[in-house]
Amino acid sequence: MRADTSRNVEARDFDQTLVRWILRFVGNPDISVRLWNGDEFRITDRQPVACMEIRDRRALFELMRSPSVGFGECYSQGLIEIDGDLGCFMVELTRAIWQRRRRSYYGPKLRSIIHAARANSLELSRHNVHHHYDLGNDFYRLWLDDRMVYTCAYFERPDATLEEAQLSKLDHVCRKLQLQPGQKVVEAGCGWGALAMHMAEHYGVDVIAYNNSHEQVRYARERAAAAGLERKVSFVEGDFRTIGERCDVFVSVGMLEHVGLANYRTLGALIDRCLAPDGIGLIHTIGRSHPAPPDKWILKHIFPGGHVPSLGEMAAVFEPCKFSILDIENLRPHYARTCAIWLEKFDQVADQVADMYDEAFARMWRLYLAGSSAAFETGTMQLYQVVFAPWDNNSVPMTRAHQYPGTQ
Amino acid sequence: MRADTSRNVEARDFDQTLVRWILRFVGNPDISVRLWNGDEFRITDRQPVACMEIRDRRALFELMRSPSVGFGECYSQGLIEIDGDLGCFMVELTRAIWQRRRRSYYGPKLRSIIHAARANSLELSRHNVHHHYDLGNDFYRLWLDDRMVYTCAYFERPDATLEEAQLSKLDHVCRKLQLQPGQKVVEAGCGWGALAMHMAEHYGVDVIAYNNSHEQVRYARERAAAAGLERKVSFVEGDFRTIGERCDVFVSVGMLEHVGLANYRTLGALIDRCLAPDGIGLIHTIGRSHPAPPDKWILKHIFPGGHVPSLGEMAAVFEPCKFSILDIENLRPHYARTCAIWLEKFDQVADQVADMYDEAFARMWRLYLAGSSAAFETGTMQLYQVVFAPWDNNSVPMTRAHQYPGTQ
Repeated sequence: MRADTSRNVEARDFDQTLVRWILRFVGNPDISVRLWNGDEFRITDRQPVACMEIRDRRALFELMRSPSVGFGECYSQGLIEIDGDLGCFMVELTRAIWQRRRRSYYGPKLRSIIHAARANSLELSRHNVHHHYDLGNDFYRLWLDDRMVYTCAYFERPDATLEEAQLSKLDHVCRKLQLQPGQKVVEAGCGWGALAMHMAEHYGVDVIAYNNSHEQVRYARERAAAAGLERKVSFVEGDFRTIGERCDVFVSVGMLEHVGLANYRTLGALIDRCLAPDGIGLIHTIGRSHPAPPDKWILKHIFPGGHVPSLGEMAAVFEPCKFSILDIENLRPHYARTCAIWLEKFDQVADQVADMYDEAFARMWRLYLAGSSAAFETGTMQLYQVVFAPWDNNSVPMTRAHQYPGTQ
Repeated sequence: MRADTSRNVEARDFDQTLVRWILRFVGNPDISVRLWNGDEFRITDRQPVACMEIRDRRALFELMRSPSVGFGECYSQGLIEIDGDLGCFMVELTRAIWQRRRRSYYGPKLRSIIHAARANSLELSRHNVHHHYDLGNDFYRLWLDDRMVYTCAYFERPDATLEEAQLSKLDHVCRKLQLQPGQKVVEAGCGWGALAMHMAEHYGVDVIAYNNSHEQVRYARERAAAAGLERKVSFVEGDFRTIGERCDVFVSVGMLEHVGLANYRTLGALIDRCLAPDGIGLIHTIGRSHPAPPDKWILKHIFPGGHVPSLGEMAAVFEPCKFSILDIENLRPHYARTCAIWLEKFDQVADQVADMYDEAFARMWRLYLAGSSAAFETGTMQLYQVVFAPWDNNSVPMTRAHQYPGTQ
């Protein structure tokens, strides 16, 4: 072992200073840091929630280049490790970042608009969806619920399981739409078909469900055939922009995040063409309380082409065609819990995932799920369910008591 | 009686052509028209819902100058009369106008922005509020409910009376806010104090309620004293911009319509300063499904300085301070019914109103109430209740079941 010469001490001081500088940029989270040389120090005076191990000096330079992409990539590659609970660490990091940005408004709004200028073409949308949803049904089956619902669940009771909460979500959506037997429903972005099949089976409607993901459509068709629902539900492999059917009900759960701001008017106009004058629609989407561009790491590795809108930005879907917004519910706490459960289940199968892909992939997904839960927990992401109807549709319900069937 | 010379026929043809031209501009409503000379004709082939009597040629020129202001003023002065049900006539007229404007978006949006540039100063706001709300408490007592609630009621059951529905509205708002005894509530724009007193009396909270209207504040103070609630509720005569208290709950029912687009950020920043980190707020306001400037007649005679926002425009209140929108409910059908009941009650006391002011005033108010009911009935106006909280408030409820107490 070498003696700690003054030159070494200087170098170590410099490394610490660099780390502190980077962490000041993300709002000084209450964490401790351990460097590759064993040096450990706190960032604030408060009790650290977890320790970030930086295992290689290279990670420092990646973090300086882009805190978001750098952290995500270094964590995936194992250059950064979290000693302690990853979920708690991500909550603290997210809280600190957004507390620091608390007052900024026009900057993120402008960057959101600039990001929006890149419209997703049909080709690009197919590519983006393929990137995430065609990872293989076997992969998602490992850690999703039995119905394969990959959107926010609805915990009607605090102690509900994920299976129960996903079922509650499907029914909550159906109740909001007041589905009647024989109605024709168009679903845009149907995942593995759980909602489409639930609507057909339990509410007697006919569903045409669109999806750009080849793997998901294949799986959904198999399931519908196995359940004897082929005549009630048809799955179409295609972009929402190819929807041509007229319908009584339009529903889209977890698709708007992939549409991109520049295509919101197109989506609104399409719904306007499809929906009957006495029809009703529902869009379920991740949202924000304020406009901001997507996280760069998420955009690069998880959801290329994605954009998480504020309600003000979502107005571009509804206002040009004068849709009347009937009801908006924010399910943010439900998505925090959903993601936390997914992470728990994912952790149990992480070795299998690493075998299917590789270690870096498994770590990347672990970070994405922990980060998503943290985003909803801290309020930097919201989950909106928006119910709307043509502006002059007077057959809309007077109250929302039908959504809470215990009252009736 | 003179013979109908060809010159007279020509003149009458010209008058009819002019009327048809004006009515084409407002979308050819299914009405008939009777002129001062007794000529009567239909505008469309369909059964007319009512007949518009134009009793003087002067009215034609007023209508040409400004269809909205012209119609309102001529109706008030008796130069135009509606033979048939005024409510049905206004529904048909409103439907026709907005059907014609169905596709226009950027034009009205631009005019809305231009209108917004005129910010209401403190002085102007006081003047505007005085114009409408200081007409005299005796006037409003004639046709409002006993509690003097001059905002949209909530018809929990279809057969509820106005008294019941206004009480339900107060409780609906209180349930949305989940009021707890001992909490401090700031109310901005409190009318005659019905909500403030209800919150204090039935939910045990302390209320500071602001209002710019001298007459309303005087009345509210008297009522609070009579009910022995002076220590729980204090009424302040002042603009919302003078609010300085910290509070657990911020509520504003029917004020945002008077704030004006240019002051939305000011309002949001004020709420941000007042509201506790674990606080909650509610704004109840008339809205639109799309941006549009106010009706010119309403602006000139009924609500000077008013602006009815779309949800996209309302984002300017919430997004700069990153408030998390928890819940939006559209009570449009409830306001159509509320206004229709007000009109019915108003008609019963119209003679008294004419004695208090004059005949033109009574007719103006009749038209305003009928027009408002028609606007909500046809969907050209909406009524939004927006519940919001600071973005990182995690004490918000998981579901909305508490709003529907039968479920619990």
